This record gives sequence, structure tokens and C-alpha cells, in this order.
Amino acid sequence: MKINALVAQHADQPIKAGTVSQRDLQAADVSIDILYCGVCHSDLHMARNEWGVSQYPMVPGHEIVGRVKAVGAEVTRFAPGDLVGVGVMVDSCQTCHFCQQQEEQYCEAGFTATYNGTDKYTGGTTWGGYAQSVMVDEKFVVSVPENLAVEAVAPLLCAGVTVWSPLRYFDVKPGDRVGVIGLGGLGHMAVKLASALGAEVTLFTTSPQKGEDARRLGATHVVVSRDAEQMAAAKTSLDVILDCVAVPHDLNPYLATLKTNGKLVLVGIPDAPHPAADVTPMVFRRLSITGTSIGSIRETQEMLDFCGQHNITADIELIAGEEIETAFARMLRSDVKYRFVIDMQRTRW
Amino acid sequence: MKINALVAQHADQPIKAGTVSQRDLQAADVSIDILYCGVCHSDLHMARNEWGVSQYPMVPGHEIVGRVKAVGAEVTRFAPGDLVGVGVMVDSCQTCHFCQQQEEQYCEAGFTATYNGTDKYTGGTTWGGYAQSVMVDEKFVVSVPENLAVEAVAPLLCAGVTVWSPLRYFDVKPGDRVGVIGLGGLGHMAVKLASALGAEVTLFTTSPQKGEDARRLGATHVVVSRDAEQMAAAKTSLDVILDCVAVPHDLNPYLATLKTNGKLVLVGIPDAPHPAADVTPMVFRRLSITGTSIGSIRETQEMLDFCGQHNITADIELIAGEEIETAFARMLRSDVKYRFVIDMQRTRW
Repeated sequence: MKINALVAQHADQPIKAGTVSQRDLQAADVSIDILYCGVCHSDLHMARNEWGVSQYPMVPGHEIVGRVKAVGAEVTRFAPGDLVGVGVMVDSCQTCHFCQQQEEQYCEAGFTATYNGTDKYTGGTTWGGYAQSVMVDEKFVVSVPENLAVEAVAPLLCAGVTVWSPLRYFDVKPGDRVGVIGLGGLGHMAVKLASALGAEVTLFTTSPQKGEDARRLGATHVVVSRDAEQMAAAKTSLDVILDCVAVPHDLNPYLATLKTNGKLVLVGIPDAPHPAADVTPMVFRRLSITGTSIGSIRETQEMLDFCGQHNITADIELIAGEEIETAFARMLRSDVKYRFVIDMQRTRW
Repeated sequence: MKINALVAQHADQPIKAGTVSQRDLQAADVSIDILYCGVCHSDLHMARNEWGVSQYPMVPGHEIVGRVKAVGAEVTRFAPGDLVGVGVMVDSCQTCHFCQQQEEQYCEAGFTATYNGTDKYTGGTTWGGYAQSVMVDEKFVVSVPENLAVEAVAPLLCAGVTVWSPLRYFDVKPGDRVGVIGLGGLGHMAVKLASALGAEVTLFTTSPQKGEDARRLGATHVVVSRDAEQMAAAKTSLDVILDCVAVPHDLNPYLATLKTNGKLVLVGIPDAPHPAADVTPMVFRRLSITGTSIGSIRETQEMLDFCGQHNITADIELIAGEEIETAFARMLRSDVKYRFVIDMQRTRW
């Protein structure tokens, strides 16, 4: 079946409306009419082949919210009309140690990415959420609470769960002190989710003007990271830091803000490594530098349920599909608060 | 009271026999006749002021085994004649969060080092174990099992517990796969202790000739780290790596040998940071780079009891006190299997 989609035909051509072939409904499949799709920074990298792995034509998008149109014969958890979401993964081996313990994001065979992956039925490429429709195995579909603003749910499917997973894996509890570096797509979700979990949040930013917004989103403290005095005042105050900045930067000033046993969790991947960190504080205060990758389907569902209970969504700016290249250009200037979301109903196909 | 000791009078003078004043026996004190003291690489750094914090005169040594000579009025756990040990710490604040949970090595006020620290009674310097006697608060004295070769117990007090603590903190269990980088004073204890805990041990070394020894000590696999083929064969095989090499080296090849969720634990502190590690595997496989510092008194006692049960001691070379400078020179060439220990009874005072 042909579906309407926003298609990247080549690394140096703008994304434009077109059509791609969608696989037939399989027994385990959920066919979803897409309402909204968030615009993740990785969509830009992939559309322009900046990681060297892109296959064209490509339909980006892995922050998908929509309503179920049809389900395959074996589908038990979803029915037409259900409000659902799809994130970064649409399949995994289901047999390895990590899949068995519901951590598909670390599947030893590598999970199947929502776009630019290999469709196990057709052998062709998987198509993402910059489209009117998507076909996904029910194991990789999550329920979206009906009480939330649907368009602002979309970014939860990648940005949200990417910061939720480390908050849960490192067992952030009420009263814990959590640092967040950078107030962008990931960072603004980290501030919201950590504070909703009861943590006292410190936002590190290079932009003093972001302080007011950070406090509105839930931060108790705002530290301008270029201000040595403010950094010194935050010394040994934090249990966990989520580092949401994907450009190389000095980790040592942040290590100094961790308590003994503290963890600095990298969730962004810069083009080059961060400068080498000092070993001394890591040994003398048993600090860890670690990282986590998106989150599992189970964590995604847990996060969505939590967001439903706490009325949490992303701060977004809605666009039509034909504005995607303008949105990319603005993202490159960090000119978005805090995520673009494509409205499929406003898009001209 | 004056005691005989091996004294460093200045950074550029050899250590020589001399005397220092020992504090009077306090109510909580244990007075110990020293039998043996291990020679730790940090003794050399400190004697020569290579870390810039040395105070002279100095009596190095923090791997002490001896017999109790006398105890203060309030001492309940030790009696004259007991075989005891003293490690890197002789005091701590006892009130902070870490002291309260028996992790004095992370005392927020900083623990009192066995030598070159500040004696809380005299206000003077603490004197280490290159001496005939030491006076220590009973809280920092541990019991030594009588069934072990006493002279070979001494290095357990620093080298032993420094690798025991991460093995326990990161919960190494039978069947876990543990890597050890470097077969020196720390590394050889890591191989012995990890294998006695039931782990399958992989020893990484730059010296192929160390393979036989590593296997004798308990390693199942020996990987020559300069051999890319051997390193590739060890890919994603390990749960925890103890990195016992205190010179800067590339961590990336070792990260590649960790399974998802694996931990690379630094126990040595190089003069300069290790080169920057790649972020990608840390994120995609949730790897941690971390460090730990010596071990607590509770862990030291636990390790000694474990060694008693499993008949584990260090591999040592006994020297007389007057051979200390020769021993330092040989340590600098890594010419020791695997720890020098000073025999106080053979030492000419």
C-alpha cells in the first residue's frame, strides 16, 4: 500500500512530501494513523547522512502518536481507535538476555530502528513517523493516556524516555538531588520528570536567560556553568547528573558537583569524545561516568503512565510537514522551546 | 616514647634508620609491635614528595602486621599477643554519613592517613609501619587469621583491600567474568581474590611472559593487550574490569571487552588522566567508568577472614629495612613479584 510521507531522497536534498510502500498488515501488526510526530535532532543527522549510515529514500521520525486504524489477527492489546505511541524501536530479536528481561534497547542483535532499519517481513527499509501512517508489531506499541494534550505527547516517545530510563535505572527517589546539563529537548524533559519524581533539580546552563524557564519547568536551582563561583557553590551537592549536551565539553567541573558515589550519566553522543576526565575524584569519591541509551518499551509505557498521572508533556512548537527544513535550520541554532512536532493533519501531501 | 623507625628526612635523601617519638597509650589505643610492613608504591611517591604533600621527617608504611603489646583502658576487641593488622587509615571523623555507615575511606572530613597524617592527640604527624611499633585507635585495627604466613599477609592491608572493595561493591559473584589489567602488586591480588570468589578471571598484560604466573595465581584467560587479535577475541566478555595500571593508557580497547552494563573500575591514579574514552559504547551499552579508593575497615576485616578461609596471601619478597632504597629502585623497574615486605626482626636499627 502506498502512503503519504515526508521523504528524504538524498543527503543534500530537502525533505519533501512523497509516497512510500507500506507492508501489508501482519498478524502481530498494529496499523496506526499518525496524528503527530516529534522532530528529534537525530532526524536531521540521519536525513543528511551525518552519521554515514543513511539509506535513501528515508522517512524520518521516531516520536509518533496516533490512533489505531486496524490490528492483525493475533493482536490482543490494542483495538481500532486506541490512542497509541511508537518510539525509536519497532523490533528486536526477542530471544537474547536483554530482550528476555525487557530491555530491548540493548538487544544483542541490535534493535530494529523505527526508520532506516530493516523490515523483517519485506527485507526493505523501515519508514518512520513523518508520514500519515505506520505499521508496527504490537510489542513495540505503547498506550498513550487520553488525558494529555496529544500533540505534546509525541516527544515523550524519544526525548522523554531517554531521560526517564536513567532516572529509573539509577533509582532516583524523592529528595534525591539531580543535576541536568543543558535545557534543550532532552534537558527540559529531564527537569520535568526528575522534579515530578520528587527530586530536587539543579539545571546547569551556559545561558543565564534560561533560568526563569528552568524554574517554571521544575528546577529548584539554576547554575550558570561558565560562572566559577556558582559552580563552586554547587560542589558535592548532587546524587545523579543527566548530561544532555551532545557537544564535547569538560566533565571535570560537573564531577566536582557530585557527592561521593555520584553518577554522571551521558545521554547525548558528541561527534568527538569529551575531554579526558580526572581520575583522582573518581577514585577518591567513587564517582561514575556512565551512559544510557533511550529506554525499553516497558520503561516507555511506565513513563507515559507517570506522565498521565502527573499531567506532564513536552513544551512544543507545532509545524506543518512542509516546514520541516525551516525547523531543522532553527534546531541548529537551538531556536526551539523545546521540540518541534509535525501536525500531520495540517500537512499538505 | 622514642621508637626505632626507617625515616625519610628529606625528599632527596635516602631513608635511614632513626628514631621518632610515639604518643603515649590512650584509652582507645592498641600498641603494636610490628613484625612486617609491605612496601607500597605510594610509599616511594610520598618519601620523595612526588605528590607535593609530604612532611618530613616521615616514616612511611601502611601495610602493617604485628602483635599487640598493650591496650588502653577502653579497648575491648584486642588483648596483648593478638595478631593484628593496620592499613592505610588510622582515624576518621566517625560522625559523617560515610563513617556512620562504616565507609571511613570516604569520610567527608578526610580520613587520617597512617603516615603523613595529623595525630589528633599530639597535633603532630602520624608515623607509619616502617618501624618497630605503631600506636593505633582500636577502631582502625583488624584481626589477622593465625593460619596464614604472617609476612605475606602485610600487603593485604592495602593492595588486598584496594581490589577487594570494588569486587564486593560491584557485587562480583561466582561465575561472573572479571578482567584485571596489569599483574603487579594490586593486580596479582585482584587475580587471587576474584578467582577465589568464584569469578572467571581474564588477566590483561603487556608482557606475554607473565601469562604462566597469571594462570598459577588463578587467571583462566590471559590476553596480551598489545595483540589486537587477542583483544578482539575478548570482545564483550566481561562484567567488571579492575584497572590496576597507574599510568595513562587508552581505555577504549577495554571498554570493548565489557558486556552491556559492564564496569571499568580504576583503582590506580595516574599522574595525568587516561586519554578520553569514546562515548558511543558507554551510551549504547550502558558502560560505566568508575573508581574506588582502598576499602573500609569492615571490608578489610572481611577480606582478611576470607583470606584465612581460602589460604590466600600475597606473593612477596622479604627485605631488611636497610634494603628499602634498593627495593624502591627495583619497584621502579617493576622488578618484584609482587610486593616487597620489610622484616622488622631482620632490620638493623
